[in-house]
Amino acid sequence: MAEDLDRADPLAAFRDRFLVPDSDLVYLDGNSLGRLPAATPGRLAEAVTEQWGRGLIRSWEHWIELAQSIGDEIAAAVVEADPGEVVVSDSTTVNLYKLAAAALDARPGRRVLLTDDDNFPTDSYVFQGLAAARGLELRVIETDLDDGLAPAAVRSALDEDVALVSFSHVAYRSGAIADMATITRQAHDVGALTLWDLSHSGGSIPVPLRSSGADLAVGCTYKYLCGGPGAPAFLYVRRDLQEELQQPIWGWFGQRDQFAMAGQYDAAPGVTRFLVGTPAVLSMIGVREGVRIVAEAGIGALRAKGQALTEYLIELADEWLIPLGFRLASPRDSERRGSHVSLHHPEAWRICRALIERYDVVPDFRTPDRLRLGPAPLTTSYADVWDALDRLRRLVESRAHEAYPTQRPRVT
Amino acid sequence: MAEDLDRADPLAAFRDRFLVPDSDLVYLDGNSLGRLPAATPGRLAEAVTEQWGRGLIRSWEHWIELAQSIGDEIAAAVVEADPGEVVVSDSTTVNLYKLAAAALDARPGRRVLLTDDDNFPTDSYVFQGLAAARGLELRVIETDLDDGLAPAAVRSALDEDVALVSFSHVAYRSGAIADMATITRQAHDVGALTLWDLSHSGGSIPVPLRSSGADLAVGCTYKYLCGGPGAPAFLYVRRDLQEELQQPIWGWFGQRDQFAMAGQYDAAPGVTRFLVGTPAVLSMIGVREGVRIVAEAGIGALRAKGQALTEYLIELADEWLIPLGFRLASPRDSERRGSHVSLHHPEAWRICRALIERYDVVPDFRTPDRLRLGPAPLTTSYADVWDALDRLRRLVESRAHEAYPTQRPRVT
Repeated sequence: MAEDLDRADPLAAFRDRFLVPDSDLVYLDGNSLGRLPAATPGRLAEAVTEQWGRGLIRSWEHWIELAQSIGDEIAAAVVEADPGEVVVSDSTTVNLYKLAAAALDARPGRRVLLTDDDNFPTDSYVFQGLAAARGLELRVIETDLDDGLAPAAVRSALDEDVALVSFSHVAYRSGAIADMATITRQAHDVGALTLWDLSHSGGSIPVPLRSSGADLAVGCTYKYLCGGPGAPAFLYVRRDLQEELQQPIWGWFGQRDQFAMAGQYDAAPGVTRFLVGTPAVLSMIGVREGVRIVAEAGIGALRAKGQALTEYLIELADEWLIPLGFRLASPRDSERRGSHVSLHHPEAWRICRALIERYDVVPDFRTPDRLRLGPAPLTTSYADVWDALDRLRRLVESRAHEAYPTQRPRVT
Repeated sequence: MAEDLDRADPLAAFRDRFLVPDSDLVYLDGNSLGRLPAATPGRLAEAVTEQWGRGLIRSWEHWIELAQSIGDEIAAAVVEADPGEVVVSDSTTVNLYKLAAAALDARPGRRVLLTDDDNFPTDSYVFQGLAAARGLELRVIETDLDDGLAPAAVRSALDEDVALVSFSHVAYRSGAIADMATITRQAHDVGALTLWDLSHSGGSIPVPLRSSGADLAVGCTYKYLCGGPGAPAFLYVRRDLQEELQQPIWGWFGQRDQFAMAGQYDAAPGVTRFLVGTPAVLSMIGVREGVRIVAEAGIGALRAKGQALTEYLIELADEWLIPLGFRLASPRDSERRGSHVSLHHPEAWRICRALIERYDVVPDFRTPDRLRLGPAPLTTSYADVWDALDRLRRLVESRAHEAYPTQRPRVT
C-alpha cells in the first residue's frame, strides 16, 4: 500500500535531491528543521571559498541585494505576493518585533494587541514585551488547541480598540490552518492591521497573502524551506503599507543610499526599509537553495502530497495507535490541516525519547502530552510514514518507553 | 626593509592559516571583511553535512549553546570580560538597539542619549530611532574626525540628564582610539551608562571592558575576527547589570527554560536574556573559527603588529604620498590609533576605484575624501604595505584615476 503510494508520487524523485543518509532513520521533524538539499554544500563551499575567500570585500556585489532577491523568489514561489513585498532578514522573532511595533505605531490611540493562546511562544513573548513597554492590553483568545482558531472567536474579541491582530497561519501544535481571509476581513472591519506567522505554512501550503488582503507576515526558512539551522527569516509588508509604516530598529541596511554614510536616517523606499543590519550571508546562501527546490516542486504539488501523507498517517493511527491510548490532536479534515499531525498520549514525553533513541524515528514532543509527526512532502515517503507508525505501535506495545523519565527535565 | 620586517614578524606564519590566493592582490580591507581562515571551509562543511545533513534536529545539542560558548571564547581572548558576560547574537545593529533600549529603560526620567558625529552611521541611526520613539534628545558631540573623540568634549556634554553614552572604541574613519576608561568614569560620575561599539577594536587592540568598568558593548565578528560576511555580532553586559536590565525584544532564546514553551515570558538568568530568536548556526560556525585563530595569535601580538604595520604605512605615506596631495586623516601616534589608517585626498573616490581595478590593491573609501587602509595584523605583511603604497604612488603619478568618475554615484 505504502509502496503503491510511493510509486505514484509525482514528488518521489525530490528525495534524491536531498542528503538522505542510507539508514533506518525515519525523519518526521522536517517542520522543525528541513533536510539538507544536496546542492547546498556545494553552493556554500563556493560562496565561502570563491566569494569570501577570493573575492573578499568585492563580493558584496553578489550579496548586497540577497535580502531582496531571495525575498522575490519567496514571493514568486512560496507565498502569494508581488516582487518587492518580501525580504529575508534577521530571525523570525526580530521580524515579529519590527512589524508588530510598526503596526502599533500606525494605529496610535488603540490599546489592544490581539493574539491567541495557540500562537508560538516566541510570538507571544514579543507581544508581551511590546504590550508591557507601551502599556497596551495583550488580549489572548482561548483556542481549541486541537482544532485551531475559530473566526467567530476572533470576531468576538475584536473591537475598535484593537490595533493589531496576530496569529499563526498553521498552528505549531495541531497543524490547524487559520482562515486568513475571514480573519483579515474581520480585523479590517474594525480598522486593525494583521500580522501572520507563516513559520509552519510557508513551503507546505498555499499562503494567500494577496487574496486575503493580509497586511504583514513573517516566516521561517529553516522548516519547510530547508534553509538550514537558524537560517534568516523572511517578512512581508503589503506594498501600499510600506511607505506608511516605520519599523523601530533603524539600521544602515534600511537606509536610503546606504553607502553615502549620511548622518540622518532616511528610510529606504519599499520593503528595504524593513531591513536592519548586515545580513548573515552564509546562512542566506542556504535559504536561497532551499527556496529554489521548493519552487521547483511547486506549492500545489507539495500541498497535495502533504494532505495525502497526513491522511495516510491518520488512517494508520486510527487503526494502530488509538487502541493504544493515543488520541488525535489535529483537525481530522485535511483541508483544515497543514503538513503535520499531533497525537495526544499521556506518556508522550518518554515515548518521544524512546522513539528517537531506540526506534530511529524522529518526531517532536509538544507540551504537555503531544507527539508531533511532520512528514515533509519534499522528502518523506509513504513508506516512511508506515515505518514510523509501525515502530511507534511496537514501541508502545513493548513498553520500551517505560525505561525513560516520565517528564521533560525542568531547566532552571 | 619590508622583507626584514617580515622575517622578524612573529605572526608571519599566520598568513598560511588563511586562504591567501597566489595573486598580486594586496588586501587592505580586513577591517571591513576579514580573510577566510583555511580551517573554516572544512568546519562549515562538517557542520552542514554531518550536523545538519545527518544529525538533523538532533544536532541542536551542538548548537543550542553556541551563542554562549563562542561568547565565552570572545571573553577569554578578545575582550577583557568574564565567562557569562558575552554572547554572539543577531547583527551589530540589532544588538545596539537591544542594549541601548535596555539602558534607557534603566534610567527612567533622564532625557538624553549622548554620542558623537564620528560614530558609525548604523549606531547613529539606531539612536535616532530610539530618541524619536521615546521623545528623547540625541546629543551629538562634534569630533575632530581625524583625531578622534576628546574626553574633555565628553565631559562638557555630560550632565545628570544623560541616560546613556555611546561611542565607537576605534573610530571607523580615522582609527582613533577613544579613552574608554576616562569616558566611562565621566559617564558614571553623572550616573549614565556606557555602551561601546567594538566593531573596529575587537580582535585588533586590547578592549579594557573590565578595567574601565564599561557597562555594555557590542562588536562585529566579520572584521578582525574573520567570522565571514555578515556573521552574527557579539554583545557584552557587565555581570552585575544583567539582572537589572531588560532588553526589549522578548524571544524564546532569551526565555528561562526555553523548551517548556511556557505562556509567560520570564527572562533567562545571566547574559542569555539578551538573546532573542534562533541563531544563524552556519554563520556562527564561521565566527567560532575566526575567534579561535585570533585567540591563538593573541591580542598582545596582534596589537604590536598592528602598531608596527601602521607606523610603517605612515612612514611610506610621508615619503611618497604627502608630496602627491595626500594628507594623514588618522592620529600620528600609534598608541592612539587602531589597526587602520586613513588618508585624505580630494580625488579619493576615483583613486580608490582605480587602485582596485587597475592596481589590484583593495582599500576602502570613506566619505567624503578618505582612502582607508587597513593592514590586518593576522594576514598582512610589511611587503603588502610596501607594495600597496608603491602602487598607489605610481597610480597617482600616472593619473590613471582620472579615467574614473570623480564621485560615488548617488543611489536614490
